[in-house]
Amino acid sequence: MELQKSPLAPASFPEMPVIDGVQLATRACGIKYQGRTDVLLMAFDEGSTIGGVLTRSLTRSAPVECCQEHLKYGQIRALVVNSGNANAFTGRLGSESVARTVDATATELGCAKENIYIASTGVIGEPLPDERLTSALGDLKVDLSSQNWKAAAEAIMTTDTFAKGASVVTQIDGKKVTINGIAKGSGMIAPDMATMLSFIATDAALPSAVVQSLISRGADLSFNAITVDSDTSTSDTVLLCATGKAGNEIYHDINAPELSDFVDALNILLKDLAHQVVRDGEGATKFVSISVSGAESDAAARKIGLAIANSPLVKTAVAGEDANWGRVVMAVGKSGEHADRDKLSIAMGGVTIAKDGQRVEDFDEAPVAAHMKGQDIDIAVDVGVGSGIATVWTCDLTHGYIEINADYRS
Amino acid sequence: MELQKSPLAPASFPEMPVIDGVQLATRACGIKYQGRTDVLLMAFDEGSTIGGVLTRSLTRSAPVECCQEHLKYGQIRALVVNSGNANAFTGRLGSESVARTVDATATELGCAKENIYIASTGVIGEPLPDERLTSALGDLKVDLSSQNWKAAAEAIMTTDTFAKGASVVTQIDGKKVTINGIAKGSGMIAPDMATMLSFIATDAALPSAVVQSLISRGADLSFNAITVDSDTSTSDTVLLCATGKAGNEIYHDINAPELSDFVDALNILLKDLAHQVVRDGEGATKFVSISVSGAESDAAARKIGLAIANSPLVKTAVAGEDANWGRVVMAVGKSGEHADRDKLSIAMGGVTIAKDGQRVEDFDEAPVAAHMKGQDIDIAVDVGVGSGIATVWTCDLTHGYIEINADYRS
Repeated sequence: MELQKSPLAPASFPEMPVIDGVQLATRACGIKYQGRTDVLLMAFDEGSTIGGVLTRSLTRSAPVECCQEHLKYGQIRALVVNSGNANAFTGRLGSESVARTVDATATELGCAKENIYIASTGVIGEPLPDERLTSALGDLKVDLSSQNWKAAAEAIMTTDTFAKGASVVTQIDGKKVTINGIAKGSGMIAPDMATMLSFIATDAALPSAVVQSLISRGADLSFNAITVDSDTSTSDTVLLCATGKAGNEIYHDINAPELSDFVDALNILLKDLAHQVVRDGEGATKFVSISVSGAESDAAARKIGLAIANSPLVKTAVAGEDANWGRVVMAVGKSGEHADRDKLSIAMGGVTIAKDGQRVEDFDEAPVAAHMKGQDIDIAVDVGVGSGIATVWTCDLTHGYIEINADYRS
Repeated sequence: MELQKSPLAPASFPEMPVIDGVQLATRACGIKYQGRTDVLLMAFDEGSTIGGVLTRSLTRSAPVECCQEHLKYGQIRALVVNSGNANAFTGRLGSESVARTVDATATELGCAKENIYIASTGVIGEPLPDERLTSALGDLKVDLSSQNWKAAAEAIMTTDTFAKGASVVTQIDGKKVTINGIAKGSGMIAPDMATMLSFIATDAALPSAVVQSLISRGADLSFNAITVDSDTSTSDTVLLCATGKAGNEIYHDINAPELSDFVDALNILLKDLAHQVVRDGEGATKFVSISVSGAESDAAARKIGLAIANSPLVKTAVAGEDANWGRVVMAVGKSGEHADRDKLSIAMGGVTIAKDGQRVEDFDEAPVAAHMKGQDIDIAVDVGVGSGIATVWTCDLTHGYIEINADYRS
């Protein structure tokens, strides 16, 4: 099955500048795919710090367990990623495979094991042929270069229809700081393939506790606010690494005013990458932004937003270009969060459709119908009980999703 | 859009005997549909008791609020149901419409308002033209008959592709007792239409507190253990009514051994009706039973089961006749309930595919592949941490679902 590039893809992969202290290399190791790269080695200079956000799945993979363990130390020297095999639900074999990969990488780069991170994405339940990967480490080390960002984004793809990258320049204390990020998303052909991975690197100098706080908070507003089909991978991994080469002052409080430009730039980049994942959602033809206000808390607003975003009835209505506000009401009701039915209001494309619990009188459907025909759909809901707000993003549910996930047989 | 009868429909509507103390009448009132019945009046003799289970949606409809209020009294004389308009998200107009219908019915039948129950299903957000219904009450009263069960099941359909009924005969204390039930499900064409309604009547003599306990417990094992697309209607209503005409002894404890045959028969009937709702799920081509064992509690097992049943990836895999156990693992992981990844086992069609956290060695896919080609699919999961069990039911996710919900425009 050949997948067409998503109609929602950005025009091109962005320019990715060098991040001082980061080098990348990719290689075709034949782990599952033929004729394409499937392993990425990222090497970081000594002193680089790391924070991460991992899947909340209770059946998480051996590589995720390794990351969780090593994040306690907050330091990174290398990240090894393979696509084609998730090394998930592989039992003892999976953990042993990760241990061998960590050992081999630590030996090759001459660093401590706890500074090595592993991520794997692809088929579930098949043992990972890790010797194909570890035997390539010497060559990967030779190939390391600070220029290979696009190749890195391509090597971690499974059935993504486009490579995902983003880059921003900002400052801390007047020192120029750069942030690069790559991601892979929810394009999924072969049964079992699904995982969100994202790796972000900056030359900023940041203590590991700050890096961890930055990525935890940032992921909540980006990767944890998107959904394609409500399903959760066993392997989702988002890592933020900081090499310190920019030479800025070190701050230990993420709320320090000197960090605010950096925090804003990082959050814009994380949101950009998360949106690219949605834009490559299986079968997606529309990118949907759902803003919820008037909830009891921001967390309640997000839960309501995700209930709307995960509703098959809302998603199929968007696919059908139908401004079906009744299905939005239904989804608010099923979220379990407090809402005042008689104060609820719903707008699409900026046009209020329902207010104070009933359809607005003399509602003119024409501008809403025109909005629904576009690629970017905006749904705004006020639930009328408080001041909590949130925005979440999803895509529509189309025949393309069924084709990719049901019609294709492994 | 003309819907084909579900391939999973039973061969025929069952024989429905008379329930002493219950009379039914239907009529075409033109509430939305043309050329078909859309109003049902069920009348109950004095002394009939009632219990019910209502949607947990926080944006529930005005008729649901009426039922909730009247259930406090535990007595029923009449139930008025209309299809074509859910009278949901209609604000003050909706409550006024319900009040007028209750008043008119109480006057027509000469009974107290709190003994009248209302249920509505159909489009959301449009005021219900209740005068079309109330003006027909006189004719409906004249038409009341104990024979009209099939007509009743047809009058409450929206886009169901077949009428749903079930009947069982059992005994209490040696006295013959009959239970009849009708239901409508999740067939949905016109946007906004979705609701599960079920009305069950018996001639058993049961105090209202017992009726309420019976239906609460029974619904947990039937209507609350099915899912088509995880979406929750604003109008779901299940009512159990008991006329007392069988003349059995009255028991006040639902665990009384004299009631055990009745409880078993009722639960079989509820499960039958719930299964019929799933078998008429939008686009359904397979009926899927998911049994979970080894969970921390029965509630945890049900949550895991529903996570599997609601997973679009599992449902599309079933549609594709693909024994994709990796997606089942994923769904267990996202349920949030405790599971031991390294003790997890999964079977399909009675054949163990994965055990102790990895695929069984020398797994023979042939019998499983044959099972997946059938109409009835069995998935069994043991999560290896306790003794909690549950079974839930769903259908597959097909192009038919997308066609019904996206391609059709209102």
